[in-house]
Amino acid sequence: MLKVAICGASGYAGAELLRILSGHHGVRVVSVTSERSAGKSPVEIFPHLSSYGSLLFEPLEPATLLEKADFFFMALPHKASQPAVALLHREGRKVVDLSADFRIKDPAVYEQWYNVPHEQRDTLKKAVYGLPELHRAKIKKTNLAANPGCYPTGAILGIYPALKNGIASAEGIIVDSKSGTSGAGRQSDMKFSFCEVNEGFKAYSVGVHRHTPEIEQELSSIAKKEVTINFTPHLLPVNRGILTTIYLKTTRKLSTESAISLYEKAYRDESFVRVLAHDSLPNINAVKGTNRCDIGLRFDARTGTLIVITAIDNLVKGAAGQAVQNMNLMMGFPEETALSTLATFP
Amino acid sequence: MLKVAICGASGYAGAELLRILSGHHGVRVVSVTSERSAGKSPVEIFPHLSSYGSLLFEPLEPATLLEKADFFFMALPHKASQPAVALLHREGRKVVDLSADFRIKDPAVYEQWYNVPHEQRDTLKKAVYGLPELHRAKIKKTNLAANPGCYPTGAILGIYPALKNGIASAEGIIVDSKSGTSGAGRQSDMKFSFCEVNEGFKAYSVGVHRHTPEIEQELSSIAKKEVTINFTPHLLPVNRGILTTIYLKTTRKLSTESAISLYEKAYRDESFVRVLAHDSLPNINAVKGTNRCDIGLRFDARTGTLIVITAIDNLVKGAAGQAVQNMNLMMGFPEETALSTLATFP
Amino acid sequence: MLKVAICGASGYAGAELLRILSGHHGVRVVSVTSERSAGKSPVEIFPHLSSYGSLLFEPLEPATLLEKADFFFMALPHKASQPAVALLHREGRKVVDLSADFRIKDPAVYEQWYNVPHEQRDTLKKAVYGLPELHRAKIKKTNLAANPGCYPTGAILGIYPALKNGIASAEGIIVDSKSGTSGAGRQSDMKFSFCEVNEGFKAYSVGVHRHTPEIEQELSSIAKKEVTINFTPHLLPVNRGILTTIYLKTTRKLSTESAISLYEKAYRDESFVRVLAHDSLPNINAVKGTNRCDIGLRFDARTGTLIVITAIDNLVKGAAGQAVQNMNLMMGFPEETALSTLATFP
Amino acid sequence: MLKVAICGASGYAGAELLRILSGHHGVRVVSVTSERSAGKSPVEIFPHLSSYGSLLFEPLEPATLLEKADFFFMALPHKASQPAVALLHREGRKVVDLSADFRIKDPAVYEQWYNVPHEQRDTLKKAVYGLPELHRAKIKKTNLAANPGCYPTGAILGIYPALKNGIASAEGIIVDSKSGTSGAGRQSDMKFSFCEVNEGFKAYSVGVHRHTPEIEQELSSIAKKEVTINFTPHLLPVNRGILTTIYLKTTRKLSTESAISLYEKAYRDESFVRVLAHDSLPNINAVKGTNRCDIGLRFDARTGTLIVITAIDNLVKGAAGQAVQNMNLMMGFPEETALSTLATFP
Repeated sequence: MLKVAICGASGYAGAELLRILSGHHGVRVVSVTSERSAGKSPVEIFPHLSSYGSLLFEPLEPATLLEKADFFFMALPHKASQPAVALLHREGRKVVDLSADFRIKDPAVYEQWYNVPHEQRDTLKKAVYGLPELHRAKIKKTNLAANPGCYPTGAILGIYPALKNGIASAEGIIVDSKSGTSGAGRQSDMKFSFCEVNEGFKAYSVGVHRHTPEIEQELSSIAKKEVTINFTPHLLPVNRGILTTIYLKTTRKLSTESAISLYEKAYRDESFVRVLAHDSLPNINAVKGTNRCDIGLRFDARTGTLIVITAIDNLVKGAAGQAVQNMNLMMGFPEETALSTLATFP
Repeated sequence: MLKVAICGASGYAGAELLRILSGHHGVRVVSVTSERSAGKSPVEIFPHLSSYGSLLFEPLEPATLLEKADFFFMALPHKASQPAVALLHREGRKVVDLSADFRIKDPAVYEQWYNVPHEQRDTLKKAVYGLPELHRAKIKKTNLAANPGCYPTGAILGIYPALKNGIASAEGIIVDSKSGTSGAGRQSDMKFSFCEVNEGFKAYSVGVHRHTPEIEQELSSIAKKEVTINFTPHLLPVNRGILTTIYLKTTRKLSTESAISLYEKAYRDESFVRVLAHDSLPNINAVKGTNRCDIGLRFDARTGTLIVITAIDNLVKGAAGQAVQNMNLMMGFPEETALSTLATFP
Repeated sequence: MLKVAICGASGYAGAELLRILSGHHGVRVVSVTSERSAGKSPVEIFPHLSSYGSLLFEPLEPATLLEKADFFFMALPHKASQPAVALLHREGRKVVDLSADFRIKDPAVYEQWYNVPHEQRDTLKKAVYGLPELHRAKIKKTNLAANPGCYPTGAILGIYPALKNGIASAEGIIVDSKSGTSGAGRQSDMKFSFCEVNEGFKAYSVGVHRHTPEIEQELSSIAKKEVTINFTPHLLPVNRGILTTIYLKTTRKLSTESAISLYEKAYRDESFVRVLAHDSLPNINAVKGTNRCDIGLRFDARTGTLIVITAIDNLVKGAAGQAVQNMNLMMGFPEETALSTLATFP
Repeated sequence: MLKVAICGASGYAGAELLRILSGHHGVRVVSVTSERSAGKSPVEIFPHLSSYGSLLFEPLEPATLLEKADFFFMALPHKASQPAVALLHREGRKVVDLSADFRIKDPAVYEQWYNVPHEQRDTLKKAVYGLPELHRAKIKKTNLAANPGCYPTGAILGIYPALKNGIASAEGIIVDSKSGTSGAGRQSDMKFSFCEVNEGFKAYSVGVHRHTPEIEQELSSIAKKEVTINFTPHLLPVNRGILTTIYLKTTRKLSTESAISLYEKAYRDESFVRVLAHDSLPNINAVKGTNRCDIGLRFDARTGTLIVITAIDNLVKGAAGQAVQNMNLMMGFPEETALSTLATFP
């Protein structure tokens, strides 16, 4: 049994890790940390985590943790994650970091978008971007996976096959995303109070959202040239789910069918990507609670545009589920372990 | 591997059976029937059932089914269930019937509330009311479990310990229930269209809901006298969940603590009932997708009333999950098999 | 033009007063106070209040206000309202107070439920409970109307005709209420964040909610004897609306029709109460944004219980709308002024 | 008093016309037609229309209607509207048609997208596209206004100033729209049942939605060249509101501030368009129930893209409100009559 610790476990991503790991027969959660909830059990904070009555949140003390666990999920705020992850990594522990601190390869880009210095550049060099569909081989060998952001997961998976195969231009890519409110985290902010969100819908952080450079980094790597995108996030009055609508200028004559074939081929060995047939389109309610990314495609011959639509659960494939997928790869568990339950619909 | 058939599988209860059984390692679903969806696969109707691509809905033909399966979940409309269940039962198959047809012991009461004759009275006599917390021993030995209605499950579990132990009067019981919209089934009715339900809330079938005699039957059996209740269902703008608020006149001086103790004792061996501590109250969002019933209690000394509040997922403990729990008991599987995943919250 | 000030105007009740008064041709809002939003305009805090760009929130300074306005809506927290209202009242200004401070006639009861002393007992004696359907004559003559709580409005209007006419017993009254989330006010509290409320439903403050003594005071006055009730509030995942389900033990043989007749008669001169016919029941979505209370009735002959269901908009008839109705009465405007727009449905 | 008839009044747009016109002091609704609801009153179908108890729906008989009313709102399905509108127009009645039948100037384009012939081409020539912000002068003089579609209203108002002033290219325009569910109309279709829509989100009719040619027609007219766009509608789990996110390639260096200035100038005389300041972005919850279009702008210097975001209420500015605005213009009422109530938020 692998001994696992979750640091920063009293947010939604932490709770989701606990939910998913309760179904993983190869691991035991030995420690959960939270400053604000120290001394309480997960079930006191999250009544749905009914099987976690005996564990208690404790304050984060890396030295103590080192003795307790062999594998670490870090769900701390960005910046705070830097020293904690670097310490664990130096001490030879395996880590999946859910913060943004080790995702951006270029520290200058990180510092520009996050407005804080990057002080763990050696550790940063060792980190692998934890999107298994693109970097599985490296993830299997790393000790430190930087778990992707929720928006980047849906965006990159939607663009990858088209860009890789050269059917879409790297210029003028538009990513229009709509996220459920749990993406904002578990917090008491008037902006996310029920009455403000319910029956509302809006865009936010237009052109300045911090997930932009993360998407651009991966697309640039695929296209082998610098890619700049438009990225517009919106806030949906639902608990979970991100739908991302992507507009790609095509470089040659296509059809919806041929685009679907190409995507099916690209993802045919993937357990957690489903390319939908011509008569259907993704809905976030079909992936809720699952680690799956659903992809729908339409070629608009009138404008020469390929429209790609992806749906993920922001807390699962967009956070905790992908983190467990990365752990499975890093530890040699079957990749689907604890990740094959179906969505609860409706 | 137990070969299982689900008849009437294209509704929400049927889909939920498929979802739950996908995690049951002792059974294989060999047949799903649906008249309206014949020829299609479950995944075409329910995109979230991603692992059910190869199975096809077929029209219900009992003779054919008899050959295929050893265990039957019947999710047909009431009345239609009567002959189908009777046939399977005569032929020695094990059946959990999710309709109302075999729940009411007294056919005259059934006929009065459902306005149709009961034509399978012999089979009715053999049926066991499938609420494991009350009738586990009988369920283990029966070939035919009549799976309780969703409202009765939440109501009876909330009243049982108080009535059984004589701390509450059998007179003047009030059951005020609020159900998510999936309780109305999967149907195209303007009353249940999004715009009519969303941001709305109302009572319906006040004093005349068909679950009333079912609740009264079980309470009468517990109280060993005829019990008549007030039952008012309401329609909640959520997908899943029933919260039931019960008002019981107490027969002696109580405290909230002593009531909690009594309920904890009554349910201490139950896997799927959780009695909450004094500082908390049930919320439907903590049981969503699970087979659990959460119970909260408050004694109001000013009025001598015990208020019991229960929360279940109407599609799980209120339908498909309880059906699988019954199957586990009838077939000798551990009772929790396929029923121990945690709720997806938020 | 009557010069009006609104104190504590940056909450939902304050915003609703601004919305309603924008359609009132006899008044001009000359001042709005808010500590937390001082210096901003209402439209900055509430983008929907598009016509309020020139007014600015200012800190509450009673001496200054006295000069500016002739009529005051006070929407301060309880306790804070006591001295402010008393001062305005002493200075001869007319006031509708939306807090709880002047609703409870007996200061000892107030102090017991609110846990703060009542230090303005002289002013309290002058206050009239501002429920026009019960106290219209007194409201017309008062300088200080204590605007009822949202739950009491729906509860009292639902019980009044039955109790007044003696068809219901004053014993064993049960009031089971379900309120939209705006009832909790505009605040940044995790409990009311979107993800906690959406797809959830729960009871709270069972047996201890502060609106209980307010309901009991008015019912006792109607029944001419001390009335004690069970009151259970619940939190609905909708923005607005309270549905209240009331269980009354009847004192004589009734029918649903006769109960409807009696209620119609009791309210036949009321502009803001609608008694529904036998084939329909109230829904909060039909009163949203309006000052109306819809009432539905069912007599359950099996149990001798009259079930009364009322629907109001908690921010309108339950707060700001009723406050304007009271102002209209106190100032001699037609009672319906600014209150006759229809609900926006869906 | 202008005598008004509403044909096809039992849908959401018809109900919204009744709601708005109840506050219009210059008109009287003398007739409402509906085949499915004939013989009932609006309040029976729509309990929120509490002031419409005496009017009764009647079947549509143009000859009878001609005698009754002087002004007609036609809310019939497309195709059915053609002969009815043509007859009324021939007889000299004034008409606002809410269907799509008289919006598209080129009958060949209409026939291609709607798959039905256009058989009233003479009448079509007389129709004016009823978007007052673009065609006010013509609307004032016409007898037949073709009320714009909901999506086109939000899209065209968002693009007009940029295209008109040449700061945006007419090439590569992307319109990504998200609509509340009332946009689908009042109908009993499983696709729009509560459980399918709630907690879901999806795109639909990607690249093939019938509002596309309507948007293109108006943009082509502004740009004085043929414009082809990408238009992707999505279904939001809210009752009302359309948020449209528009991506425009700019033709010169801009700033967000300069774009805002240009839009403010373009709309400075408009009562129903609000251009938001730099620190805010539109939210559908601020326009709910109103005839206003809110517009927010961001220039993304990294990609040379102007992002325009518009919010309207699909049933008001997107349907019934704009229809009343057109009537006001056609009849010489002040344009804002009955359209100046504020949104009900939350």
